[in-house]
Amino acid sequence: MALIVQKFGGSSVRDAERMQNVARIVTAEHDKGNDVIVVVSAQGDTTDELIEKAREINPDPSQRDMDFLLTTGEQISAALLTMLIKKMGYRVTPLTGWQAGFLTDSNHSRARIRRINTERLENEISKQNIVVVTGFQGINRYDDITTLGRGGSDTSAVAIAAALHADKCQIFTDVDGVYTADPRVVKTAKKLDAITYDEMLELASLGAQVLHNRSVEMAKKYNVRLEVLSSLENKPGTIVKEVVKVEKMLIKGVARDDNIARISLVGVPDEPGFAFKVFSLLASLKINVDIILQSIGRDGSKDITFTVAQDDGKRAVDALNEMQESIKFTKIAWDENVSKVSVVGAGMESNPGVAAKMFEALSEANINIHMISTSEIKISVLIDKEFSKSAMNAIHDAFDI
Amino acid sequence: MALIVQKFGGSSVRDAERMQNVARIVTAEHDKGNDVIVVVSAQGDTTDELIEKAREINPDPSQRDMDFLLTTGEQISAALLTMLIKKMGYRVTPLTGWQAGFLTDSNHSRARIRRINTERLENEISKQNIVVVTGFQGINRYDDITTLGRGGSDTSAVAIAAALHADKCQIFTDVDGVYTADPRVVKTAKKLDAITYDEMLELASLGAQVLHNRSVEMAKKYNVRLEVLSSLENKPGTIVKEVVKVEKMLIKGVARDDNIARISLVGVPDEPGFAFKVFSLLASLKINVDIILQSIGRDGSKDITFTVAQDDGKRAVDALNEMQESIKFTKIAWDENVSKVSVVGAGMESNPGVAAKMFEALSEANINIHMISTSEIKISVLIDKEFSKSAMNAIHDAFDI
Repeated sequence: MALIVQKFGGSSVRDAERMQNVARIVTAEHDKGNDVIVVVSAQGDTTDELIEKAREINPDPSQRDMDFLLTTGEQISAALLTMLIKKMGYRVTPLTGWQAGFLTDSNHSRARIRRINTERLENEISKQNIVVVTGFQGINRYDDITTLGRGGSDTSAVAIAAALHADKCQIFTDVDGVYTADPRVVKTAKKLDAITYDEMLELASLGAQVLHNRSVEMAKKYNVRLEVLSSLENKPGTIVKEVVKVEKMLIKGVARDDNIARISLVGVPDEPGFAFKVFSLLASLKINVDIILQSIGRDGSKDITFTVAQDDGKRAVDALNEMQESIKFTKIAWDENVSKVSVVGAGMESNPGVAAKMFEALSEANINIHMISTSEIKISVLIDKEFSKSAMNAIHDAFDI
Repeated sequence: MALIVQKFGGSSVRDAERMQNVARIVTAEHDKGNDVIVVVSAQGDTTDELIEKAREINPDPSQRDMDFLLTTGEQISAALLTMLIKKMGYRVTPLTGWQAGFLTDSNHSRARIRRINTERLENEISKQNIVVVTGFQGINRYDDITTLGRGGSDTSAVAIAAALHADKCQIFTDVDGVYTADPRVVKTAKKLDAITYDEMLELASLGAQVLHNRSVEMAKKYNVRLEVLSSLENKPGTIVKEVVKVEKMLIKGVARDDNIARISLVGVPDEPGFAFKVFSLLASLKINVDIILQSIGRDGSKDITFTVAQDDGKRAVDALNEMQESIKFTKIAWDENVSKVSVVGAGMESNPGVAAKMFEALSEANINIHMISTSEIKISVLIDKEFSKSAMNAIHDAFDI
C-alpha cells in the first residue's frame, strides 16, 4: 500500500464537470488500495475575483488581510470536491491549511512553510479516509492565516509528500507533462518521460510555467518523486527526479522568456566602482538583474548592458536617471523588443559542442545574438523578440530533440 | 472606557456601499475611546449561493462538509470590512471563529457554543485594535469547523459580549428597533424603547424575526444588555434587558404567525390514553404542537384539535391516518387558512382585563376566535387567515399602544 499525494490546479476544479474528472482520478487511486491525500487550488478565476473585490474596497490592502480573504477560495473548492467524492460512496475529510498542520513564517502573501504538524493527516489516513487539503495556505505562530504565494499549492503538495514520506507526488495540470519546448510555438516539441530537478528548475525559471519553482526546490531537497500529468487524459506524464539516465538526448528543452527588457548605460567611466553603484542601486529597489554584459573600456569609458523583467524596466531607468551625476553615464537606452531563448540539459556540461551547435543554428536562421549567458546546464541568448519563435524552432531542430 | 460588541447582518454588509455605513458606525464608537468587537454575517445572498453550488455537486451533502463550505462566507465579509476600516486609518484585526476562540459541540449546522477561549480577543483589545470576527461559526474538539445554524451570528455576538462582560451588545439590522407590531401590517405600530428578554422571546417565537431566539436566551442567561438598531439610520434602537419599568404601556406588541395549520381529530373515544397516543406519535416525528383544544366528551367521544407549523401539516396528517385503527377517530380535518394573532406584555399577568379587552376588540371587528392559548406574558388566538391583518389593527388600536 502506497501513499500518493495528488495536486489539482484551479483549471482542473473550475466547475462541477471538471471536478468529476478529479474525483475519478482520486477514487481510482484509492481503489488500488493506496492512501490518497488531495491538494486543491481555488476554482478557476476565484482568486482573481476575490482580489478584484478587495481592490474595490481598498486599493492597497494589507497582505495579512489579503491572505485572510484569499484562503476562502481553496476552502470552497475543497468543500465541493469532498462532497462530490462522498457522493460516490467514499469516506473523505476536507482540511484547511491550519487543520492539516501547515505552520509557516509570517511573510504574508509569500510565506515559507516551517513545518507540518502531521498528526491530523496521519490520523485521517489511518482510517483509510481520502483527505482533501486546501493548497496555498497555512498559519504562522500567532495563529494568523498566511498564504504561500501564487502557485503555492504545488509547494503544499510537495511539502505533504515530504513530511509523510509519500511514494509519489502527482501534479495534475491541463497539459500532459513537461515538453522539450512550448508545443504552441514548436510543433515538433516532444513530451519528456523524465527530467532532473535541476533541469526542471531551469525550465521553470525560463518561463515554462508547469511547476512552481519552490515546489521543485523542495522536491529536490527532500527527494520527493514528482510527476506532472494531465487531469483530462489518462496517460503517464513526466517524472521529475534526481538522476535521469542520459540517453541520446543531450538537451531537455528549449524555453523562451518574452517578459524582459534590456537596459544599456553608455559612457560609464572605466574606473572601479561604477558597476557596483549601478547594481547596488537596483538591488536596493529589489529589481532582479539577469544577464549582464560589460564592454571593454575604450577611451576611458565603457558600456554596461543588462536585462531585467519588463515590469521593472521603467523603475530601473527612472532610478538610474536620478543617479546620473553619480554614475556618470552619457546615455541610457531601454529596449523591450527582446527575448531570451535558452536550452537546458544536464548533459551539456560535459559536451562543449552544445553552445557551438546552438549558435550555428541561430546563425543559419539569420538571427543576431545580442547577449549570452551560460550555466552548467543552460545556455541563454538574448535576441530580437520578433525572431523568438523561429529561434526556438531552429534550435529545437538542430538538436534533434 | 467601555467594551461594545456590534453585530452586522448580511444586508448591512451586502456591498461596498453598505459596508461604508458599517465602517462609519464602528469607527465612531472607537473614536469615543471604546473598545469595539465587530461580528459580521456573510454578504447578502452569499450563503444561499454557496448552498446552491453545493447542491449542484451533491443534493445531500454532509452537514460537516456544508459547515466547511459555508464558513467562507463570513470570512470574506470580515476580510473586506477589515480592509475598509483599515483604509480609514484604524488598526483592525480580522478573526475567524476558531481564531476568536469559539469552541462548540459537534452538532454540525446547529452547533451550540461550549465556551470561548478569549485570549486572542483580549490580546487584540489590549492593543486598542478593532476586531472583526466572523459570526455563525466555531470549531469542535476535533478541530472540525462547525456552524451555529441560520441567524447564528446574533448568538456569536451575544456570546462574545457575555464572555468578555461587554457593556453592550448592539445588533444592527435593516429595521430601527423592535415594534409593537409589524409596521407593514399595522400602520400605527410604534417602536419600543425597551423590552424584556421574555417579551422578546415571545415576540420572536411569534414570528417577529428581529433577533435569533437563541441569542435572546443567552443574553437573558448572562444578563447581556442587548440593543436592536438600524445600520442605516443614526438613532437609538430598542434595548432588551431583564426588567423594563412598566409605564402606561401594558402590551409590548402584537404579532401574527401565518405559518400554521390546524388539525382536528373528530370522534376520538372519551377514554384515558387517546390524547397521549396522538401527541407521543407527533413527538416521535419531531413535530411541534402549539395550541391544543380538547372538547368535552359527549356520547362517549370527544374531538381533539391542535396546531402545528404548516410545513409539518401533511406529515402529521399522514402519520395520524396510518394510526387510525389505534387512535379510533372517525374523521380528520386539516385547515391551513388560519393565523395565530398574539399580544405580548410582561404586565398582563397582573391585569386580568387584558384578555377581555382583546376579545372585545375582535368581537367588535366581527372576527371569530377558533382557539385560545395563554401564558403569563402572552395571549394567542387562532382566527381565519383572511382576518389576520384587521385583527392585528383592531387589537393594536384597542390597547392604545
